[in-house]
Amino acid sequence: MDIGGTKTEAVALDREGRVVAGARIPTEAGADGVVSTAERVIARLAEQTGRRTAEFASVGVGIPGRIDRERGEVHNAYNIGVERLPLARRLAEATGLPVALDNDVTAAAIGAAHLMGLDGVVAYLNLGTGLAAGLVIDGTPIRGAHGVTGEIGHLPVDPLERPCPCGQRGCLETVASGSALKRYWPAGGDHPGRLLLAAIDAGDAEAEHAFEQLVRGAASCVRLLALTLDPHTVIVGGGLRLLGPRLLDGIRTALDSWATQSPFIDMLELSGRVQLLAADSSAAAVGAALASEGRRR
Amino acid sequence: MDIGGTKTEAVALDREGRVVAGARIPTEAGADGVVSTAERVIARLAEQTGRRTAEFASVGVGIPGRIDRERGEVHNAYNIGVERLPLARRLAEATGLPVALDNDVTAAAIGAAHLMGLDGVVAYLNLGTGLAAGLVIDGTPIRGAHGVTGEIGHLPVDPLERPCPCGQRGCLETVASGSALKRYWPAGGDHPGRLLLAAIDAGDAEAEHAFEQLVRGAASCVRLLALTLDPHTVIVGGGLRLLGPRLLDGIRTALDSWATQSPFIDMLELSGRVQLLAADSSAAAVGAALASEGRRR
Ligand SMILES: [Zn+2]
Ligand SMILES: [Zn+2]
Repeated sequence: MDIGGTKTEAVALDREGRVVAGARIPTEAGADGVVSTAERVIARLAEQTGRRTAEFASVGVGIPGRIDRERGEVHNAYNIGVERLPLARRLAEATGLPVALDNDVTAAAIGAAHLMGLDGVVAYLNLGTGLAAGLVIDGTPIRGAHGVTGEIGHLPVDPLERPCPCGQRGCLETVASGSALKRYWPAGGDHPGRLLLAAIDAGDAEAEHAFEQLVRGAASCVRLLALTLDPHTVIVGGGLRLLGPRLLDGIRTALDSWATQSPFIDMLELSGRVQLLAADSSAAAVGAALASEGRRR
Repeated sequence: MDIGGTKTEAVALDREGRVVAGARIPTEAGADGVVSTAERVIARLAEQTGRRTAEFASVGVGIPGRIDRERGEVHNAYNIGVERLPLARRLAEATGLPVALDNDVTAAAIGAAHLMGLDGVVAYLNLGTGLAAGLVIDGTPIRGAHGVTGEIGHLPVDPLERPCPCGQRGCLETVASGSALKRYWPAGGDHPGRLLLAAIDAGDAEAEHAFEQLVRGAASCVRLLALTLDPHTVIVGGGLRLLGPRLLDGIRTALDSWATQSPFIDMLELSGRVQLLAADSSAAAVGAALASEGRRR
């Protein structure tokens, strides 16, 4: 399952990793709310598949925040009202099933690579309210030392040096993210991604500028990922993927223009590596389930 | 072996990966020169171990430039006078042994992690004339799509936007590298690293400024690697490691000062992850040999 700020989405996978059932319910905030949401969505999948909960092999949870996978704990998941929650233990007690946790972006990276049939090094760029990446090599995620793999949103890069909630200045997230979009284009309200393209088409110059900043920032993330991990594929996902082909084209155009200025960048063939996650994808739920399977072996 | 701009260093490893012999000879430039250098250093190791060349299990070569490992080709290794060389085939024909190529920085990363007994995610930061990183997970290097894994030296970050040979502006390498050191401190000549600390101690303000830039740039590389791969350890190597404990202390001090400004950075415990490669280490030669072993299996 993928526990998000407003909804929780869950899928049941068969032994071959195919989705055989899916459910989506609102997320209840707070530690108890999150545990109860998870229990209910599992019960829903049991119903749909005509099985008892105990027949599931394992439960995988993708959830925002910093994840201590060994201890099965979620830390600092503020948008679901959780500061610290031993979610794996509590859900295992409630269901009798083995439970594995992953950061939601890592889970989405695993799921996206699986659903899109991608081998090799895959980077998943999550353009949501925040900005982060998930990294997968031949289906296996890179999980580092302190649970911050892929936190590229907090790399200081912008000479304008706007303050970031993390305490630094000029982080990538202050340039390329949903929250940055809101600041560049206050007229777009709380969900600027939904209105942005229509506003640009109607001639809103501020909206257009905001979109250009987003696109350039996302392109610089692709370059950053290429010059660290050299991924075969960079998948663009997250809430802002609803901007669709125009987002993808914008990123590719920015990368191609950099390539004309640098033979080195040209050689990297960056724009050809970028793909967009399908709008209706349940990548994070699928990835979380796959990662819990991995844990059993 | 590690084929460098001026010398070629080779080691013989036993089955357990222990160094049982070592040799160092000058590198002959150009395609034929490089092949002949490699042949001669192998003959030297055979002599030292009292074995015939044919008794070696495999040959691993770490070499600068962009490496096409599948084809066994070296591209754009300008400092050894090579534009394109099918080194693996030529050396295999000359010796009758299986030959595997790796980029020198990747080889050094593999070797350093092995020699220092480091598991988990290890990033190796090579501060040489240029700037690059090698990435190893549990002894296995990350090898990406286009042979540019770890080319962080060409990430544009510096608002001063100095031109870089790659065609971009403000690359990390223009701030933190031997070549940047030369530009900041022309009085240091062609090998500024050898004289820098003495000049600082003698009160040379320009030398001190150059050192500070290097240290801050290297610290920002550590942060960059931490926020992408979250490595358990970042090893600082390359020619500038001759700056020794003062380089390491400088990097740690910069990281600690950033931690006081950001609770997020503080949580990452960056300065504790940084270690210096030993001055006399043959990491690249050892890593190249290990990677050629991996290829045989
Ligand atoms: Zn930040
Ligand atoms: Zn460059």
